[in-house]
Amino acid sequence: MGAYYEADGVKQYVARFYTSYGAEPEWARKAADVIVTSDLFGIQTHGIERMKDYCQAILDGKLIPSARPEILRETPVSALVDGHEGLGHALAAWCMELAIKKAKESGIGIVSLRNSNHYGFAGYYPLMAIREHLIGYSVTNTEGLMVPTGGKEPLLGSNPIAFGMYAEPYPFLLDMSTTVIPGGKLSLYTRDGKKLLPGCGLGPDGSPTVDPAEVRAGINSKRFGGILPLGGLGEDYGGHKGYGLAMMVEILSSILACTNTSNNIRRFDKHDRNGEFFAAMDYTMFGSGAEMEKNLSDYMETLRSSARFDPDVPIVTHGQKQFESAKQNLERGIFVRDVTYEEQLEAARIAGFDARPYFVPVEQVRVD
Amino acid sequence: MGAYYEADGVKQYVARFYTSYGAEPEWARKAADVIVTSDLFGIQTHGIERMKDYCQAILDGKLIPSARPEILRETPVSALVDGHEGLGHALAAWCMELAIKKAKESGIGIVSLRNSNHYGFAGYYPLMAIREHLIGYSVTNTEGLMVPTGGKEPLLGSNPIAFGMYAEPYPFLLDMSTTVIPGGKLSLYTRDGKKLLPGCGLGPDGSPTVDPAEVRAGINSKRFGGILPLGGLGEDYGGHKGYGLAMMVEILSSILACTNTSNNIRRFDKHDRNGEFFAAMDYTMFGSGAEMEKNLSDYMETLRSSARFDPDVPIVTHGQKQFESAKQNLERGIFVRDVTYEEQLEAARIAGFDARPYFVPVEQVRVD
Repeated sequence: MGAYYEADGVKQYVARFYTSYGAEPEWARKAADVIVTSDLFGIQTHGIERMKDYCQAILDGKLIPSARPEILRETPVSALVDGHEGLGHALAAWCMELAIKKAKESGIGIVSLRNSNHYGFAGYYPLMAIREHLIGYSVTNTEGLMVPTGGKEPLLGSNPIAFGMYAEPYPFLLDMSTTVIPGGKLSLYTRDGKKLLPGCGLGPDGSPTVDPAEVRAGINSKRFGGILPLGGLGEDYGGHKGYGLAMMVEILSSILACTNTSNNIRRFDKHDRNGEFFAAMDYTMFGSGAEMEKNLSDYMETLRSSARFDPDVPIVTHGQKQFESAKQNLERGIFVRDVTYEEQLEAARIAGFDARPYFVPVEQVRVD
Repeated sequence: MGAYYEADGVKQYVARFYTSYGAEPEWARKAADVIVTSDLFGIQTHGIERMKDYCQAILDGKLIPSARPEILRETPVSALVDGHEGLGHALAAWCMELAIKKAKESGIGIVSLRNSNHYGFAGYYPLMAIREHLIGYSVTNTEGLMVPTGGKEPLLGSNPIAFGMYAEPYPFLLDMSTTVIPGGKLSLYTRDGKKLLPGCGLGPDGSPTVDPAEVRAGINSKRFGGILPLGGLGEDYGGHKGYGLAMMVEILSSILACTNTSNNIRRFDKHDRNGEFFAAMDYTMFGSGAEMEKNLSDYMETLRSSARFDPDVPIVTHGQKQFESAKQNLERGIFVRDVTYEEQLEAARIAGFDARPYFVPVEQVRVD
């Protein structure tokens, strides 16, 4: 069903693809790094296989690779940026760079971004701050796909929260949707013919279902159905908490940017215009950064080495799996499904170039 | 089992109690307002019935009502404060005032507090910011009572997240522990002879249990047992997300303040020294505050008036129940259980005054 390819070649392909639609080379490389880092981290739902959506968005005139961000308002600690419907990943990375610059100068930097496009996996942006020994934070709203507690309409986004801080040997890097299961699970489970666990979603009639295609049909109907909040149905297991976290994300992303709330976002529509929020904080404002990082590293090691519920299942800290995956994938290459490979050959053909030289298989490793 | 008393009298009682142990009157009133607002909001677990813990902490020399906060480090956007083991509620309110002042001057204000005591219900502090049309945020770590995903030791606190923004007719006010059920449920259910739902906690042998006393015994053992993270056992329903949110809170509260992580906090021990974190943000940095507040109000109304899963159960937004409860309790009085009333008469007697005049029953309403 696919093969492993050298990450660097795939990254060059993505950059080449965007430059062929007018993106400046540096800008295109910024976007490509987010996408391929997602694959390196083992988050395939936000990696190269998402390119087909971005290609379509370009052809539809919704994603404009040549667009550059514009700062509409600015203070020493903040900026409001208009993305002019440009490359979501590059815009987001640029905004995080701005937040980092402000954090270094003023202790904290907060950037609100409107009129952007899908920014990929949220964890990339805090990671940029972590490298500079700053705390990083990013949230975004999305198309409506989550029902509020007590409701059955898909009015809230998957609304991820990403947060991170430097530690040894891995940083702490949280990257989570505020839904009980990530939206990507719906298509993955549908493709693999798997059922959801009970208590994850509602179908187009507004009733609980374990059929992932039914949940997706509900979301697409924009009427009834959707994924339940983290905590599940009702309040017994804290479903109102997941709903509340999604609202917090909604406020920080769409309300602050004065753009569409998730209920008004239609995926692949010309006018989704979601909002994104980036923050960086220099913790040396509060004391010795090295001492804090050591305390965090020690605490995370205490957690990892504590008694296991199941002796065969290790306790991991957030970010650990991703960094271990990246180490492996840098050697092994990133996995690209055949269907994705074919999609990209076709996309490149439309864009006017041959993608094949960019996809360099690693030692003929294939998965069939 | 109890009666309703005028909120104002109870508030005066709490303040009088603290001044009798050396707190300045204004400082004591600050603490009393947090405690009684909790009861007004219907959050009894953090109201007057908690006073017995605070009384004990004073007698143990752990809570020093006369202590005043000291700013150890300060920038235009931040401060690190030492609470010198003073009144937790008053210290926290003072820190939030400082964050608000900085937010008004610089756009954002962040305050890290160490060496404090239990600060009550976390939602009080964002509420202070909401009144000033700022976004408010507060988190704190606590004694270890949550097990990490894949583990069975109580190494993480209940680690609440509180966040709010002004809206009509109610603000958005999230106040949630990052555990699947709040810690207060354990004693409440034990008292009422109720069982927990499956998937909420582990007992002292590290195995799942529905007995709330067993979960508490596990927590108290500091060895095995505790409440599961929001999302429950394992990763199927996102338990790793609740665990990750608790870690985020841990970083912002204890790591930044260079104080004890939750695994090192012993409740009622002389040296819990938890950490707290307060932030306020002036969203007019990004545009028209009135427009954002209107957008949020409209969005919340859209949620409340959307189709219900169960026609008989209304969809509420976060903070709504609390504000409705406060409106009712201001008229009806706050409910004080007889056992709590007796405890407070005794506490006041030890402190050297008669508490009875402060407890003014409202129209003889009793619940037996």
